[in-house]
This record gives sequence, structure tokens and C-alpha cells, in this order.
Amino acid sequence: MTLLDKINSPQDVKKLSTAKLESLAQEIRAAILNRDSKIGGHVGPNLGIVEATIALHYVFNSPVDKIVYDVSHQSYPHKLLTGRRDGFLNDEKMNQISGYTNPNESEHDFFTIGHTSTSVSLACGLAKARDLKGQNHNVIAVIGDGSLSGGEALEGLSNAAVLNSNIIIIVNDNEMSIAENHGGLYTNLRLLRETDGCAECNLFKALGFDYHYVADGNSISQMIDILSRVKDTKRPTLLHIHTLKGKGYKFAEENKEQWHWNLPFDIQSGKINLELGNEENYNDITFDYLNHKIKQDKDVVILTAGTPGAFGLSPDRRQQLGANYVDVGIAEEHAVAMSSALAKGGCKPVFCVWSSFVQRTYDQLSQDLAINNNPAVILVFSGAISAMDVTHLGCFDIPLIGNIPNIVYLAPTTKEEYLAMLEWGIEQTEHPVVIRVPTQVIYAPAPVKDDFGSLNRFETIRLGQDVAILALGSFLTLGMQTADKLKEQGINATVINPRYITGIDENLLNNLKENHQIIVTLEDGEIDGGFGEKITRFYGTDKIKVLNFGAKKEFTDRVPLDELYRRYHLTPDLITADILKIK
Amino acid sequence: MTLLDKINSPQDVKKLSTAKLESLAQEIRAAILNRDSKIGGHVGPNLGIVEATIALHYVFNSPVDKIVYDVSHQSYPHKLLTGRRDGFLNDEKMNQISGYTNPNESEHDFFTIGHTSTSVSLACGLAKARDLKGQNHNVIAVIGDGSLSGGEALEGLSNAAVLNSNIIIIVNDNEMSIAENHGGLYTNLRLLRETDGCAECNLFKALGFDYHYVADGNSISQMIDILSRVKDTKRPTLLHIHTLKGKGYKFAEENKEQWHWNLPFDIQSGKINLELGNEENYNDITFDYLNHKIKQDKDVVILTAGTPGAFGLSPDRRQQLGANYVDVGIAEEHAVAMSSALAKGGCKPVFCVWSSFVQRTYDQLSQDLAINNNPAVILVFSGAISAMDVTHLGCFDIPLIGNIPNIVYLAPTTKEEYLAMLEWGIEQTEHPVVIRVPTQVIYAPAPVKDDFGSLNRFETIRLGQDVAILALGSFLTLGMQTADKLKEQGINATVINPRYITGIDENLLNNLKENHQIIVTLEDGEIDGGFGEKITRFYGTDKIKVLNFGAKKEFTDRVPLDELYRRYHLTPDLITADILKIK
Repeated sequence: MTLLDKINSPQDVKKLSTAKLESLAQEIRAAILNRDSKIGGHVGPNLGIVEATIALHYVFNSPVDKIVYDVSHQSYPHKLLTGRRDGFLNDEKMNQISGYTNPNESEHDFFTIGHTSTSVSLACGLAKARDLKGQNHNVIAVIGDGSLSGGEALEGLSNAAVLNSNIIIIVNDNEMSIAENHGGLYTNLRLLRETDGCAECNLFKALGFDYHYVADGNSISQMIDILSRVKDTKRPTLLHIHTLKGKGYKFAEENKEQWHWNLPFDIQSGKINLELGNEENYNDITFDYLNHKIKQDKDVVILTAGTPGAFGLSPDRRQQLGANYVDVGIAEEHAVAMSSALAKGGCKPVFCVWSSFVQRTYDQLSQDLAINNNPAVILVFSGAISAMDVTHLGCFDIPLIGNIPNIVYLAPTTKEEYLAMLEWGIEQTEHPVVIRVPTQVIYAPAPVKDDFGSLNRFETIRLGQDVAILALGSFLTLGMQTADKLKEQGINATVINPRYITGIDENLLNNLKENHQIIVTLEDGEIDGGFGEKITRFYGTDKIKVLNFGAKKEFTDRVPLDELYRRYHLTPDLITADILKIK
Repeated sequence: MTLLDKINSPQDVKKLSTAKLESLAQEIRAAILNRDSKIGGHVGPNLGIVEATIALHYVFNSPVDKIVYDVSHQSYPHKLLTGRRDGFLNDEKMNQISGYTNPNESEHDFFTIGHTSTSVSLACGLAKARDLKGQNHNVIAVIGDGSLSGGEALEGLSNAAVLNSNIIIIVNDNEMSIAENHGGLYTNLRLLRETDGCAECNLFKALGFDYHYVADGNSISQMIDILSRVKDTKRPTLLHIHTLKGKGYKFAEENKEQWHWNLPFDIQSGKINLELGNEENYNDITFDYLNHKIKQDKDVVILTAGTPGAFGLSPDRRQQLGANYVDVGIAEEHAVAMSSALAKGGCKPVFCVWSSFVQRTYDQLSQDLAINNNPAVILVFSGAISAMDVTHLGCFDIPLIGNIPNIVYLAPTTKEEYLAMLEWGIEQTEHPVVIRVPTQVIYAPAPVKDDFGSLNRFETIRLGQDVAILALGSFLTLGMQTADKLKEQGINATVINPRYITGIDENLLNNLKENHQIIVTLEDGEIDGGFGEKITRFYGTDKIKVLNFGAKKEFTDRVPLDELYRRYHLTPDLITADILKIK
């Protein structure tokens, strides 16, 4: 029987001797690698925080004392010590436990968290609630150095510092964000590490925190010692601990960026258990295009916000881009505002961002960019209905961006159309342009030469009658397949590629009235507030019938994609059946 | 002829002697007071930055050197020195000049700015563009101490510090936000002021800036001296200047919060030129209710983000609320996350925020609040079509909030309904609840007793046939007036109060089909992505005709409200005409 077998709650951690705690750390590491090697997940952040987590549960009394993990990339050891070891050791139960903190899984988790930089503000709320209720437990936020640069974290730090009460913020400094860190914050963290926390010029002390530095955050005894000392403090306290990202697993220690998160792999060799095909993908297509473009035009600048790897921008590729590439760290708001100003300054910025994270920038999109109408380009990746964790869904960007005036939001369908839109977006000077990068690469039957400057012209792909299918972006394939299915029913449907998410082609829509009775819209995202509803509104007083297909307004959590497609009737058969029902 | 008469561009400032510059400062002050006393505007911030602005234009070469003013509250002296004195001295032309920086007004303005905390990121973009283009002008951001606490500003500072190039950030420290400052940032600013900038523990130095302190930022000579020294620096530089908010106008110096922004007033007496009526308003109604509630229930907490005055929360009222009131400073993201956590911790948070500023919190609404489904209450004030400046429009909150799953967004119509919804929202434990506070107080004909827990039940106010008007929130009055107008045409319209923005009453909508042919939706905000489109989608395959009324997707800038209502057909006559057209 292993030690982990006997840990059913944090109370069981407190019973172990120092030597046993060390053994427990090794078991936790093995369990993390077991899970990650089989189903993929965050590797480096979790391996680095094993000892600190053991110490937290040894010293504090969770769930009375409340620990909030930022972004949850480092919550696996916590999960292992709070009754969820099956998610790491039992192959059949792994998928029952998410990769993020989740109150539905355990009373030791207080929030479902998957975006960065939120823990300090959330901890402030828990601490203030405690104070108003006259309780006296500890509230602890655990935040990685990389997450510190996000605006919400910085707002939180400034407010936590004046809470005048117990709040303990553990900055887990592993000298890395997802990729390398960027920003002046990290200048100070380095100084503090180099001076063993003694430098007078101390960001956290400047804010008003009681500050402590732990040089070896991977030492259980050092961590137990310091946590015992700060426990029950009545002052805002910041514990700066230095840990090794990927600790105990050679490959993860050596290549921290690649092993921040990984696909399933072979533990011995560190090799990914997946034949990565040779198919083209939009990361490569985008890089190849932009890299070539930059060689010709030094005004082009690519920006990312802390996640270059998500766009295939490996260290080697970043180096190729040189001064024309800027990673601002986890700071999406800054990236959008900076893009707007780069355009104002005569450059041609291209900000790459995931759909889920562009959510962090609504006000910057509206105020810094759209009101100013600067010609920056934003590429939204992973905008699609997906089987992702609830915190990483990509189905909300169309309602988010599509209703902001002045922005031209484009939905390319093929590689050729994507590149034509990208070229146009970069070279035009009239509009902020956002492009929803397709998920699967398909190819155009003919060259795409449009300049897209005459806005909101939809393209008819197949001309039929009775039924017209407006199939947005990635869903063009679904639209064509549905048209084929309708053909079997004797219906020769029209298929249209709308191309523009943010406007409608009134001429084309009016012309459809002549010999169509049913209009169908397909979009790879939430229907509410999306593209299809605008089409339905256009036909609001006509006899024509309109059916909108897309995702329901709901948060879904790791629901398989085929199940979602069935649920939302996003298959050729189900769409056809719905059409026949109203015909 | 005054000195100002001869200042047509910053070049003219450079010709003046030191003594003349001092006289110019007095003329600028008089001009600011002239404008503000006649049409209202920002008083204190502008009076405090007069000398610094003169020095900026004396030393730098605008528009080649580029000055970006954060939030624009302090841009009046800049406007006066850049060819726009008519906006301050000529009564008839005052309204031609906005209260915010605006590139359409002058080549010396680079962005239209009205939300806080954006200047540093924008300046970073201009600086990076300059570097890529091999230019060598100065880029300057001017930001108030109050704006520093916003996440975007802090992201910007961290990135500016590592720009490795010319960027000069002027922190105009007048020891005030709009109200008093909150947060650890201000602990450090105070220490720096008290040590004449010499304290080792220096937030800005920690980030990596070259740092300079100016004890008297209202001294033209001191400002010219320091600006001359930092001009053309190749290093990220932060100039911390201490100024007096409201300088030179007794009332503004004595009551900084009230005089941050003011309605038109009498310069001599400082009295507001407006008979403030005795009509009830939602600020008082909200305060009275919450203050009473808190006396009974210490779990209730009110939060604001730097703008308590916008909700009538005067210093006296804030004191009455005591520990159950939290102003987090300008930090809306933090406020939403903290509200979610307060609810998780068993408290009953109520976050008050303007529609325009809730835009800054989409990701926190979605991730920190809605995914976690915590029962926090958010009150959205000034959510309405308005004649406001383009940066302060309140017509986008329904598309923004209304399409986030799990949130219950309510649109009360009367005082009684508002209070019933507020009471229900605070006491229920199932949902994040957002309430769109009406703009004008009207009263319910009968007590409102609903508990609102059975979601999405619309209320029929008047039962008719043929035409049904769904009039959301504040527009119930417009709906009733339209029904009266239709009556004159022999149409006995049904009027419905939807109450819920985020869901539809399928039973009621189905029942309407029986004897209605036309459905009209009215909402006080953008139609795109809003409430009405969901109704239209519901009827997408029915014979019923649907007309959606609301604001067009566009940014409007100080357009009179009656003009907007005409443009959008938001009058009983125009709506009636549109209905008759399709009948």
C-alpha cells in the first residue's frame, strides 16, 4: 500500500513524518506523470509545486482555511491530497477529474478556474466575507509568477495589500510563464531572487505586504517552517517562493516551455504518443505567411499575450521574427491597446489570441480599438464549439466581438480565403479587422482574389432554390454536406458563404426572397447574440422562414463534440430533418 | 489681446518668457472655469495640470513628439494650447469641442479616450511603431494617480518598463482618484511623496523605470527643468509629479471629490446653476434601500470601483455604510471577481457600476462569476441610449451581458419592481443577478410581490390583440404610449413587460400567436445581439411578423437624444407608422 492510498483528505497528510512527506512527494510526482502521460495535461507547473502543496496541507486546515489556486495549472498535487487520487492513478476514472479546480469535485476547491490572474481578487472576496462574518480562518492565494502580469492580478494585489486582515499570497516563482516572462515585474522578481529576498526595492513591500522569501520552495521543511510562521497572520502577507518548474522529470526541467502542458507521452523517452500527421494546420500557415510578409515589410508586427506556443510560435520561430514579434506576457488588454496604437503609429500589427482569452479584452476592443477605428488585425484562434473544459470554451467570440461597431469580423472558410483576408486586413487602413481562423484546413476550388474592402458582400457557393443555407466560416463544409443531403430529398439548396460576421448583404438577402422559402444559418458558436439572429431579424416581417443553428447559450464542460453536435442539431441529417419539418 | 489669443499652436508657447508663461497659466485657468461653469465638465483634474501642460508644450515638439492623456479628464489645458480655445472662450462654439481627446479635433490628439488606464499601453504602441520605423521622437503618457490602479495601466507599466527605448510616463499625483484612492499602490505613492521621491522602496524603480520626482508639479520652471532633462532619453522613464487637484479655484481645492466633475455653476459662489428638483432618483432609492438592508443584515456588502459619486454615494453616505461598503478604486475586474467570492463566502454583495464601465469586466462576469454561478448582484446604472460622449455610451450592456450563460439579467420598469428585484436578487442563492437600473422613476399601479425565482416569466400589462409590444425596462412607457397611439388607429395592442433580458417566456410567446399578427420589441440599447433578436428568432418559422426597435450598431458622439430617437424610430408616432406599414 502506498502513502497516497492512505491520503483521503488533508487531515491524513498531517499524520506523516518528515521522511514520509518526502516519499509522498515522490508518489505525487509519479501520479502526475501517470495522468499526464495517459491523457495529457499540465506537467511542469504541477511538478514544481508538489512540496509547497504538501506543506500547505500539512500546516493549514483546508477547507476551513481556504486555498485558491490561480488558473489551476498547479492544482494537481492539491487534487491528489484532497480525495481525488483516482483521477491520477485509475485509468478509467481519469476523465472524471478535470484539470482545473472545481467545487463540484471537492469541498477543498472554491472556484472553477481556468483563466489566469484571478486568484488574488477571489481570495480578497473570501477574506472580506470572513471578516464581515466574524470568522477567523486563513485565506491563501497561490499564483504563478507568469500570472502576475495580468491586469486582474495586479488590481487584486493592490487591493489585497490594504485589506488590513489575514490574506496570504503565495507567489510561486519558477522563472517562467507558459513561455518566458515579459515585463518589468520580472526584473524585480529576479532582483529579489538574487538578493535572497533582501533587496530594498521590492514591489510587494512597496504595495504594503509583509514579505517573505523562500529560496527553495521545493523544500518541504522550509515551506512548512515559513507557512507555520505566517499562519493566522492578521496582515496581508506575500510569500515569494522560488521553485523549479518541471522538478523531478528530466525532460520537463530541460524544456520548460514545451512541458508546461503536453499531449500524452511516453514517460521513459518523453516522446509524444501521437503520430502528428503531415496535414497543414493554421498555425503553420499563419507563421509561414507572416514570416514571409515581415521579410518584405518591416511595419508588420506580430503580438501574442503569453501563449506563443498556442499558435505554433516556437522559440525558433520567434527568433526568426525578431524585433517584429512582441510577446507582452499574460496581458491581453495591453496587447489590444498596443495593437491599436501600433496601427495609429503606421505599423501593421497582427495580434494572435485564442477565442477564450479575447474575452479578456472587450473594453479594449471597443474603446482603444473600435472607437479609434485603427487598422489593427486580430486573429482569433480556436473559435469553435468544442469539447474543451468549461473555462476554455471558444463559442462566445461572435456575440462578444460581432456587436461592437466599426470592427470588421471576418469568417474565412478555406486556406486561400484566409490568406486573402489576412493580406487585405494587413494592407487596408480603414477598419479594425478581426479574423476567425478556421479550425480545419480545406482548400478553395478557385483562387480567392477579393479585396474585401466593399464590406458585407456574401458569396453564393451553390445556386439553388427553396432552401438557402448561410454557412459561416468553418461550417461551410457542414452547409455543403447538408445541401447534399437535401438533394436526396429532391431539394436543390442554395449555399452561401457569408464571409462577414459583422454585417449583412441586404441585396443578396433580398434576392433570396424571390425563390426561397426557408433560410438556414449555421455558425460554429453561440446562437444568442450571434450571426444568425441578425439574418432572422432582417427577415422579421417577411413570409420567409428562418432557422438558426449553433450552440445553445450554456456552459459545457468536456462534453464530447459529437454529443454537442447532436444536442445542437449540427449534423446534415438533423438539419435536414428540421428543414423538412417546416417545409 | 490676451496671451491665449496668440496661442494657435504649441509653437507659440515656446516663444513666451517665464513671466508670460505664468500669466498664461492664469488665463488657462480662467478659460477652464469659463467653460465648465457654462456647460459643465471636469474641473479639478484640469486645474491641477495647467503648469505641467504648459511645460510639456514648451519643452516637447507636439505633434512630432506625441503626448497621450489618460482618460482625458486632464486634457483641457492641452486643448487650449493646441488651437481649440474657442471651445473654452466662445459660448457658441463650446459644444464643438468635446471634453475628451479626439484626433478629429486636432493633430495633437492621437486617440479618442474616455475610459481610464489606457494611456501607457497606447504610448507603448506608439513607441514601438516609432522604433520599428527608425524614427526618434518622444512618446509621453500622462496618467493620474487614480487611473494607475486599473489593470490595463498596470499591464502597460510592466511592459513599458522593458521597452528598452524612449517612453516617458508622467504620473500626475494629486492624491486623489475621482474620490479618494484605494489600494497598496497609494501606500507607495505617499511614501515617495513624503521622502521627496528618495525612498528605496519604489514601485516604479522596482519595475525598472528611471524615476524622477517633482515635489511641485504646479511649478512651471520645475516642470520645464525636469522635462528638458528627460527629453530624448533612451530609457523608459517615469516622472512622478505632485500637483494640487483643483489648484487656483478655492471650492475645487477644498472639496476635491465634488469638483472632480461638475454641472454648470456660478464661478463666484461655486453654486450649481441648476434647480435640482425633488423628484426621486434611483441613486437615492438604491442607497435608502441598501442602507436600511445593511442595518438588518451584516452580510450585505456594497462595492463600487472608483466612482461612488456616480451612484450618489457621498462621503457621508459611505460612512453610514461602514465596513459593509468597499470602494476598490478604479479596478472593475477586481470588483466583479471579489463580488463572486464574497457570495461564495456567504455574503450578499451588490456591485454598482455604470453600463459603460461594466464593459471592462466581460471575462470576470463570465469566468469568475457566471461559470461559478455565485449569487452576487450587479446593478448596471445608465444603461440607455444617450447623448453622451462616444466613450461613455450605455447602449452595449445588453449584448455584452445578455449572452453570457447562467446570468439572470433583469430589466425593472418601476420603482416597486426594481426594489422587488433587488430584494430577490440579494436574498436568492441560485444565480448571478444583474439588474439594469431604470433611468426615470415611474411607479407601479399595484404592489410588486413576485419573487422572480421562476425565471423568464414575462408580464402582460395590457391585453389586446393583433399587435403585441414587448417593451423592455425603461421603454415600458414608450410601449404604453405607442399602444395609446395605436388605439387611435383602431388597434387594441397588447403590452408586455418582459422583465427578464436573458431568457424568453415560451408559453406567453406561443399564446400570442393565437390572435396577434405583429410583435414589436423595444429596448433601450443596441438591437444587434440584444433582447429583441431573441424574440425574432423564436418566431423565425412562424407567420407572425416581428419588428425590433432599439439603437443601431454604431458609435454616436454627443448626438442629442431626440435626434437619436428619431433616427431609431423610437417615438410612438414612428413606431406606429412602421407597424401600419406592414399591417
